[in-house]
Amino acid sequence: MSDFSMETVLGAHEQRKAELERSGNPYAGGVAWIAGELSPLEEARIPILDQGFLRSDLTYDVPGVWDGRFFRLDDHLDRFEGACAKMRFRIPMEREVLRRTLIDMVAKSGIRDAYVELICTRGLKFVREYQSYENNLYLMVMPYVWAMPPAVQVTGGAAVVTRTVRRTPPGAMDPTIKNLQWGDFVRGWLEAMDRGAVYSLLPDGDGNITEGGGYNIFCVKDRVLTTPARGVLEGVTRRTVLEIAAQKGLEAKLEFVPVDDLYHADELFICTTAGGVMPITTLDGQPVGGGQVGPITREIWEAYWAAHYDPNYSFAIEYPNRAAVTA
Amino acid sequence: MSDFSMETVLGAHEQRKAELERSGNPYAGGVAWIAGELSPLEEARIPILDQGFLRSDLTYDVPGVWDGRFFRLDDHLDRFEGACAKMRFRIPMEREVLRRTLIDMVAKSGIRDAYVELICTRGLKFVREYQSYENNLYLMVMPYVWAMPPAVQVTGGAAVVTRTVRRTPPGAMDPTIKNLQWGDFVRGWLEAMDRGAVYSLLPDGDGNITEGGGYNIFCVKDRVLTTPARGVLEGVTRRTVLEIAAQKGLEAKLEFVPVDDLYHADELFICTTAGGVMPITTLDGQPVGGGQVGPITREIWEAYWAAHYDPNYSFAIEYPNRAAVTA
Repeated sequence: MSDFSMETVLGAHEQRKAELERSGNPYAGGVAWIAGELSPLEEARIPILDQGFLRSDLTYDVPGVWDGRFFRLDDHLDRFEGACAKMRFRIPMEREVLRRTLIDMVAKSGIRDAYVELICTRGLKFVREYQSYENNLYLMVMPYVWAMPPAVQVTGGAAVVTRTVRRTPPGAMDPTIKNLQWGDFVRGWLEAMDRGAVYSLLPDGDGNITEGGGYNIFCVKDRVLTTPARGVLEGVTRRTVLEIAAQKGLEAKLEFVPVDDLYHADELFICTTAGGVMPITTLDGQPVGGGQVGPITREIWEAYWAAHYDPNYSFAIEYPNRAAVTA
Repeated sequence: MSDFSMETVLGAHEQRKAELERSGNPYAGGVAWIAGELSPLEEARIPILDQGFLRSDLTYDVPGVWDGRFFRLDDHLDRFEGACAKMRFRIPMEREVLRRTLIDMVAKSGIRDAYVELICTRGLKFVREYQSYENNLYLMVMPYVWAMPPAVQVTGGAAVVTRTVRRTPPGAMDPTIKNLQWGDFVRGWLEAMDRGAVYSLLPDGDGNITEGGGYNIFCVKDRVLTTPARGVLEGVTRRTVLEIAAQKGLEAKLEFVPVDDLYHADELFICTTAGGVMPITTLDGQPVGGGQVGPITREIWEAYWAAHYDPNYSFAIEYPNRAAVTA
């Protein structure tokens, strides 16, 4: 591919999605790995006594697969291992086996654009009682999840800066440990819905913006990108955006981003593995900049999807029945 | 009963526990209700796709059963309903049916001292996508859980005021919605373990104490009780303690409790359904007051367990095979 315009990239995805739905693969809707067994995602069950459910005592990560290529898998595994170490978890699977299991799951499912989720939990024992590090691991592969649907990406999404909820501070929960304690984000999603928008951007309670439910935030002003340095997940998509900016000679800064800066931005976008680079063109009911997807956002959007074919970032998965599926 | 000393109350509990273990009841280790089916707790499974797991998007409550009597069940159900309303959940079971189901589960299990847990989750759809309020309900009954084991209650537990973690502020997550987003509490439990203690008391980041992992905190000074008014769960055990204090003519205040007050207290205790009134006699490695369970704590401890036989607070459960079990 050499054309990475929204139309081409999203159009090709739609074709692959339609092909998947015709495949008849029993895992086309998703597949889960639990205690060594694969099952269709909708049938997958976990013990109610898992502390990952009973205390949200877990960490997770979400690498993606695009057009049959795993994107930055090792960067996600590095972050996952780091988060598990901070939680004092021992991942109950060697890294190389974990890597192969994930690739095998994607291959078996036939899913070519996939959302892949790894969850490691404390296990069945409460934190105070467990000594033996019998942590639990759950793996899922499902069709690509869009935090912002393709049709919305073309014109950009509507966001609010939340006024009823602030982001949980790092002193309470370290946001660099990717976690599923989404109480603040859920309040944010609800507030956005109540205010006629979709996306919520959470302040830190001290006048700076942080992040939203699953995504980092970028602000563009006079061709300079800024994104919060503190109180947020160290996103792999965020890192990709920073690397793309560096390649393009665009200045990009990790720093405190005052909430007020968002209202004076030329462009805004949010980013995550589940959706990529997602333009925000309306903030608190008002247009951002000219109210259209801006040129910097578009340039990064295209470079982001192009990167998915860069062997420095991704590798091809061998699907067993690729010939049969495409025949 | 008329003697509610620690020795008598805890001794009687040990006898009932031994009797349960001899009962051979298949639910003696616990029973779960999921989607209309009962199963032994250890075998119970929930869908991995439940947003209660994938986003900790849930609320829960924990009533207790003591010596075959449900304690303040309706107060717990009131709080649970209030929390569900705040989460915009509709409990998928009429209150009277829920009440009967819980009683039936306890009766079938033969457990006479029980920890009962109700969890209502967002359901299978992400908060932004769900419109139909198909929330999920999970119910569990298990043998009584001791946040502080009986043997420790006699001499009192060792606590620390955490210095590595603060309580999640109400502006991020409303603590009056009882939730399982225990990231801060887990850090607290780990810090306590690292510092040779068990219990952690979390500050609010502004110089006041809040609560710990599942329990409220009381400070006693010159026969006056204080407990934090803000940034904490409105505990049913806390309320019982306040009512007992009123009955005994002891002054008790809900207010901001400066962290520093804990170091000048005559007595400290923590309280929760899972353990009752639990004396803290060591704080940051130093004795609290005289380093023994204090007279006010002991008086409230005894009144708390006596209240479990008060028909204003509790009612007897009819166990089907009580005669056979005790024969």
